[in-house]
Amino acid sequence: MDLSRVTIVLVRPSRPANVAAACRAMKNMGLRRLRIVEPPPGLDDRDARAPAYKAWDVLDGAEEVATLSEAVADATLVAGTTGRDDVEGTWSPRRLAAEAEGRAGGGGLALVFGPESSGLTNLELGLCHVLVHVRTDPAQPSLNLAQAVLLFAYELRLAGEAEAPAPPEVVDAAPAGELEQALQELRTALLDVGYLDPLNPDHILIELRRMLARAGPTSREVSLLRGLARQVGWAGRVARGGKSTS
Amino acid sequence: MDLSRVTIVLVRPSRPANVAAACRAMKNMGLRRLRIVEPPPGLDDRDARAPAYKAWDVLDGAEEVATLSEAVADATLVAGTTGRDDVEGTWSPRRLAAEAEGRAGGGGLALVFGPESSGLTNLELGLCHVLVHVRTDPAQPSLNLAQAVLLFAYELRLAGEAEAPAPPEVVDAAPAGELEQALQELRTALLDVGYLDPLNPDHILIELRRMLARAGPTSREVSLLRGLARQVGWAGRVARGGKSTS
Repeated sequence: MDLSRVTIVLVRPSRPANVAAACRAMKNMGLRRLRIVEPPPGLDDRDARAPAYKAWDVLDGAEEVATLSEAVADATLVAGTTGRDDVEGTWSPRRLAAEAEGRAGGGGLALVFGPESSGLTNLELGLCHVLVHVRTDPAQPSLNLAQAVLLFAYELRLAGEAEAPAPPEVVDAAPAGELEQALQELRTALLDVGYLDPLNPDHILIELRRMLARAGPTSREVSLLRGLARQVGWAGRVARGGKSTS
Repeated sequence: MDLSRVTIVLVRPSRPANVAAACRAMKNMGLRRLRIVEPPPGLDDRDARAPAYKAWDVLDGAEEVATLSEAVADATLVAGTTGRDDVEGTWSPRRLAAEAEGRAGGGGLALVFGPESSGLTNLELGLCHVLVHVRTDPAQPSLNLAQAVLLFAYELRLAGEAEAPAPPEVVDAAPAGELEQALQELRTALLDVGYLDPLNPDHILIELRRMLARAGPTSREVSLLRGLARQVGWAGRVARGGKSTS
């Protein structure tokens, strides 16, 4: 994948020096675009900036965004990192690098890292299309944040250097923000129709999101899903409310 | 190669925190043996030790040696890192990992890193059996010392795992017959709800089938779709018929 289409997203990083070190690692491997959800205080301090050695432009160009959803809205493939080794179906950095081009369908990859101590929450992982994990030694499994960024960037760079990538499976994949909009409309409709449990609607919604994201829907398909949600929602409200409005 | 046969050698590192961070990176990847030629002052300082988070044993176990020759004397393969990209015949980290076992002939690998600012001298590089180099971006080619250690350790670890092939993305994809059953139930439900055009329902159904087939749904996901169809069909019949039967 063309590295200019990769965005690194750091969610609530707690240590400014880690952010700075991640910038150097990114630039070492040719990545430039960084978004930070809730940046830590002190990012402008001289000492905190030092690890961004010769990558000041990446650090200074980082965009501050309010939410993870906003940070990944323009990506077509959203990969969330987890340090947990008991999550099923995670991809290795090498596999992500090999498959990103095909799965992103010509769009961008957002690669998301959680806070140093706790990682991404389950809710945040649920927003991601694929989960990625670095297999480490059980004696010290926890990678430093900038080290984790480096490993993924390194694999993406090497994969980009290997030529003859497989043509993308989907030619005009919809951005994550569009798919998410459709999913939220489906969520409302499937609540209206009594399919989702109002006490825990997101459990099943996450499964639907993963399945749909694997398909890499086009904008046309996303609009089909939105039309479907609209009609299902109408029927659900009428059926449960007892009166027809359409 | 068995990771217990790998020794990391740091030659005249100038920053104690880099040594400590290298220890964490080593332990993350299952390496334990560190030798330092002319360690920097301050390695015992509390702040300098912090980056060796949960790898204190590696740091405390590091051997101080007087010369590079002494540090590599018991290895059968000595690999020297260089940041210069104009040295002919260098190996990538991946190639080193792939060939170390064969080249070391049952003995040990010593992997040598020079000082942060200047790297190994030509004399020191001359003591090495092979030279290794990480290809980085020309805009910021210089890797942090601990980052460089991590990349080599990562490749050695992956090669040591004998690279089992990546597991398939979907472990229990449903047979086409199951998916088709769910699609037919969706078709009925989406007719009931007024989403599909009764005069030409299959046009859009084909698009939905293509999209879902790309995802390769599991049996679990197919059963979610069937439950969804059931509930949507109920709402559709009630909304259009004007009476509830569920």
